[in-house]
Formats: sequence, structure tokens, C-alpha cells
Amino acid sequence: MSTCLHTLHVDLSTPSSDRSYPILIGRDLLADESIFADILEGRDVILVSNDVVAPIFAARVRGALGSRRRVTEVILRDGEANKTMAAVGDILDAALADRHERGAVMVALGGGVVGDITGFAAACYLRGIDFLQLPTTLLAQVDSSVGGKTGVNHPQGKNMIGAFHQPIAVLIDLQTLHSLPAREFSAGIAEVIKYGLISDIGFFDWLEQSASRLLAREESVLAEAIERSCAVKADVVSADEREGGVRAILNFGHTFGHAIEQVQGYGRWLHGEAVACGMVMAARVSAARGQVPRDFVDRLVALLGRFELPVTPPEDMSVADLMASMAGDKKVVEGRIRFILLAQPGNAVIVDDVSAAEIESACFDRANLD
Amino acid sequence: MSTCLHTLHVDLSTPSSDRSYPILIGRDLLADESIFADILEGRDVILVSNDVVAPIFAARVRGALGSRRRVTEVILRDGEANKTMAAVGDILDAALADRHERGAVMVALGGGVVGDITGFAAACYLRGIDFLQLPTTLLAQVDSSVGGKTGVNHPQGKNMIGAFHQPIAVLIDLQTLHSLPAREFSAGIAEVIKYGLISDIGFFDWLEQSASRLLAREESVLAEAIERSCAVKADVVSADEREGGVRAILNFGHTFGHAIEQVQGYGRWLHGEAVACGMVMAARVSAARGQVPRDFVDRLVALLGRFELPVTPPEDMSVADLMASMAGDKKVVEGRIRFILLAQPGNAVIVDDVSAAEIESACFDRANLD
Repeated sequence: MSTCLHTLHVDLSTPSSDRSYPILIGRDLLADESIFADILEGRDVILVSNDVVAPIFAARVRGALGSRRRVTEVILRDGEANKTMAAVGDILDAALADRHERGAVMVALGGGVVGDITGFAAACYLRGIDFLQLPTTLLAQVDSSVGGKTGVNHPQGKNMIGAFHQPIAVLIDLQTLHSLPAREFSAGIAEVIKYGLISDIGFFDWLEQSASRLLAREESVLAEAIERSCAVKADVVSADEREGGVRAILNFGHTFGHAIEQVQGYGRWLHGEAVACGMVMAARVSAARGQVPRDFVDRLVALLGRFELPVTPPEDMSVADLMASMAGDKKVVEGRIRFILLAQPGNAVIVDDVSAAEIESACFDRANLD
Repeated sequence: MSTCLHTLHVDLSTPSSDRSYPILIGRDLLADESIFADILEGRDVILVSNDVVAPIFAARVRGALGSRRRVTEVILRDGEANKTMAAVGDILDAALADRHERGAVMVALGGGVVGDITGFAAACYLRGIDFLQLPTTLLAQVDSSVGGKTGVNHPQGKNMIGAFHQPIAVLIDLQTLHSLPAREFSAGIAEVIKYGLISDIGFFDWLEQSASRLLAREESVLAEAIERSCAVKADVVSADEREGGVRAILNFGHTFGHAIEQVQGYGRWLHGEAVACGMVMAARVSAARGQVPRDFVDRLVALLGRFELPVTPPEDMSVADLMASMAGDKKVVEGRIRFILLAQPGNAVIVDDVSAAEIESACFDRANLD
């Protein structure tokens, strides 16, 4: 028997279309045949995973899917470097080879990379079929579960090709977090902390108090952290599904973070590590503007430090590298780079007037940072 | 000065989202700078065409786009065989190489293949940017202008990969029809006749009466035929944007038609030619069921004959070939092949109980057909 600790409903419905879906958070959900039967009924499945996650979790999911539906399995190679159109092509080829019809459901078992690739494949297959998310990393659980962003990278930049496509449900099995390497767990915590920073200072305070229990991966604390993170994200996304405005605050730390990842080459730092560093940089610029106290930056640095997350840019990276990279980011509006700063702790704001000099002074004066 | 003969508004709006767009039908629209300025304002453009259409029309479009916006040009190879993910990749590569942002607009100048590829590229680029249709074939003008279907072929079948993505506007320049080869013009007429068959018998009657003037490509008659075709399609699509139900009647003649194209290899018959034959086959099955008079089938055969469209399956194709091919089509629901028949002239109906024997008797008894 599984135990469902939290259920959150994401509601993106309009009067003319029902697009709400549940996020179930609990223990042993991936092995629970009745949950899959409720969500998928008798529909066929294209199960997509990768060569790291599949050996651990695919067997229990196959078991829970039962023997009465057709299941096509696609195992991708692990890693951000494989988040490409070629991987999407592999999924589409496999689905077509087995002649899956519009009623089939793509099921993403893995981290954010598997989820993003599979969601995009589902968006394109026969012009769009349903998909179900089974995120197995903390980052994917708090980031990819809500928002509907799917897609792949291009040599010119991250997530340049994709679609908005909402899942029919998200199952978050807390068991997956016990086998997660410490570095990947911390990368997910970075995004959790982000939600506190941008819109719920009470959540940030709670995270400071709960850091030891999070590090011990206590399930009840993990469940609460995930649920509150998804709730913040769902609130923001509901207000702005297609990213015209307020949704941009979810990119807090990401403009710097993406630039760090791109300049270094994807994969040297994990996405969440780059975001952790990016959040500190954005907080430092905010503090330099007098919008948050300097000791709030210190609290942020200390909290990230508990999880061994990086808080200063890579040694070999200059502010010029950063600015050049950011100029190619999607978050450019009419040639101006959009930054997310903190208006105050727990409250993010979008600005477009941050200069290279300001970033250099706040974030690259290494003598001051150490 | 251009002359706008008809303007049709396609309205797919819901209370929460505005998704209506205009279809402008007239003479010299592609050279009209003020029309492009109204629709595109100052936005940058990725202009996509092919190596047959671009030499004829690209210069006038470039002129009408003016010199103040950035224009990236992508010239694809002509033909259905090039409707592939590789072509989509070429467009995305070019757009990314020039660092086009979310405000840029993809402009499709060409027939249905260019429109479908470009629309899908626009749907995927930065998770979706706007696109503008400039259809240069009659088929594209009456078929691709309305409905939002975009996508590419896969070795396993036509249009297997794609997205629903609505254009911001469609400009139909009647001048493009004067240079269209007779065979392609007739292929477009097949779809025009389809709209009469499925939902407007008065339009079918008018087409019989206007056949000579259509063959002479009189602009006022062309404009009316296009406008009435788009109006029928818009009515059907508005009622069922995502193809759950009634929209399937637009596939009248297409289930047979796609099978003919696939069994022969794409390109031997034009899509519209295969549809013409498919419509006769569907009409014959309908007549065999007593739903339309046999002399109505004769009228249809005669009208298609005026435009030299094929009305019998290829000599070397068997009913078994056809059934095997149709089993792999998207129009399969839970293993049953969905057919569109005529309930009566001017009124289509969806059925799933047509047997191979019924098709063979109605459509492959060659002695009876000649």
C-alpha cells in the first residue's frame, strides 16, 4: 500500500476548457497499481526513462501499469547533453513503430531532462497526446511538475525548442529521493529555496529551521517542502500561463544561472547549482540597491551553504562572459536583458536596467566576497 | 494599390483568450506594404519559402516588408518529400543563428507544405512564436488557412509530428493562382468541392455552374470559391478546434486519399488528386448504402472530370493495400477505422462500420466503374 501525504490541484482551467490536474505526493506511489488505473484507465503507454533511473524504478512502474495495456519502453541516455531533438525523435520513432494512437499516454519517469523531452514528444506526437509525469529528482518534483514547459536544447542555447504542454497528473514518490545523490538533492533544494525568496518569506524561514531534517531526508518534511514549492509555482503560473509577465519571477537566479551553465558548457555545474549561485548574485545586486538587508544575503549564503551549494561564480568566469551569454537568452525583450531582483525578502520584481558595472561591483569583486 | 475582395474573420476565441484572426482575399496583397505594416508592425521576420515559389514571389514580399525590420530568409526545397523534421530544423537553426526573439514572426510564403513546416517551426521556436500565412496555392488557401494544423511527415505516415498553432493572419493574393500549374490548381479545386459536399449543397451547385469561369481563373469567382470554402472550414473548426468530433468531417475523402498517397509513395499523385479519388470512393460507398442517389455520384464524377481530377483508384492498387495502409492512419480510434460518408448530398457523417468487402464492391469493381 502506498501512502499519499499531500495532494495539490493545479488549476489552469478557463470557462471553456478544463485543464486542471492533480499532483500526488507520497510514499510508494510508483508501485501503486490502483493509482495508475485511476489516472490511465485502460490506455496504452509509452514509458520513457533513462539509463540511470530505469534500472532502479522502471520495474516497479511496469508492475504498477499492469499487464493489460500495451507498453512501449524508451530508454534515453542520462544527462542534459542528451536533451536534444534526436532524443525526441527516438521517442516519436518508437511510438510510431508500435503504431500508438491518439489515446496513448506518454509517461516520463526520471528527472527534469526526461520530463522536458517526453513532454515535448507528447506535444508533437500526432499533434499532441496526453502525458504523465513521474519525477524522480527533487528538482523535477518542484520545478517541472508545474508550468507545462517542455522542450530541448540547441547548440545556440537551452530550451530553445519546445512547447507548452500540461501533464494529466504528476506522481511524486518520496522514495525516489532516498537514492538521489547528495549533489542532485542539493540542486533541487536550490529551487525550493527560490520559492521562499520570491514569494513566501515564511517558507524561507521554515526552510532555515528545517535544514537539518531536510538534509536527513525526513519524508514528512520533504513532502511539505515539495508541496509548498509546487503551490507557489502553481499560483504564479495560474496568473500567467504563457509567460507574458509575472511568471518571469520564477526565473529568479536563472538568468545568471543559465549564463553560467552556457559559458562553462552544460553539465559541469548542475542546473540547481548554477541557480543557487545566480540567486546569490541577484540578491547581492538587490542588496546593493538597498532593497534587501546585507544580512539577508548572508542568511541566504548560509542556508545554501548547509546544502553545499555554490554561492560565487566559477573562478574562470568574467562579467563580460556573463553579459555576452545573457544577451542570447530567451529572456531578452527588445534587446534589453530582463533581470529578476528582490524588491524585499520574499518578494521578487522584474527590472531591465541592471548594468554590467553594477553586476561586476556586486558579484565579481572577489576580495569582498570571500 | 492592392484590392481586397473579401475579408473573413476566423474566431476561435474563448472568454479568456483572444484567438481570432483575419483572412484577407484580394489582388496584389503580397506587394502591399501597408497591409504588412498593419499586421506585423515593426516586428522582425523569419521568411520561409521554397525554391519554386521564392523566385516568383519573394522579391515582392521582401519589398512589402520594408527595410526597417530584420528579415531572415530560409528557402526550403520544394515538395512533400521535404516535409520533414530536418526542414523544421533548418528553420530553427536559421532563426537561432540570427538570435531572433519571441517577438519575431515566422512568415510562410508557399503552398501547404511550406505552411505546415513553418507553422510547426513557429509552434516550437522558443516554445511558440507568431506566424503569418501567405498561401500561394489554391489548396493551401482553402485548406491550410483555417484550422491551425501544422506538422511534418514521418517515414511511418503523413503529418505524424506536429502541433495545433493558429496564424495571426492569412493573406491570400489571387495573383498567385495565375502562375499555378493546371494540375496543382485542380488539386485545390478538389478541396473546394469537398466543402460543398460535406456541408453546403448550394455551394456544390454553384461550383457546377461556375466550373468554366473557375477554369478560366476569373478572380471574382476564385475569390468567392475561396471565401466560401474558408467559411465552411471555419464553422466546422470553431465547433471542434482539437478534432474530438465533428471536425473529422473535414477528412471526407482523406482516409482513402492518404492511403492512396502512402501506398504509392508520396508525390506520385498530388494530395488533392488523391482526395478527389477518395471523395468519389466515399460517395460510392454512401450511394451503395442508399444515402445519396447514384446520379449524385455521377454529378461529382463529372464535376471532378471538368478539372481532370482522378476518380478511380490507381490501377495497381488493391483493396488489401488500402486497408493495411488505413490501419496505420491517425484516424484510428481504438482499432476501428473511422470513415466519413455522406448522409445525404451536402451533409457528411462519421461512421466506423465500413468493411473491406463493402469498399471492394463499391470502389474496386473496375468493370462497373468504367
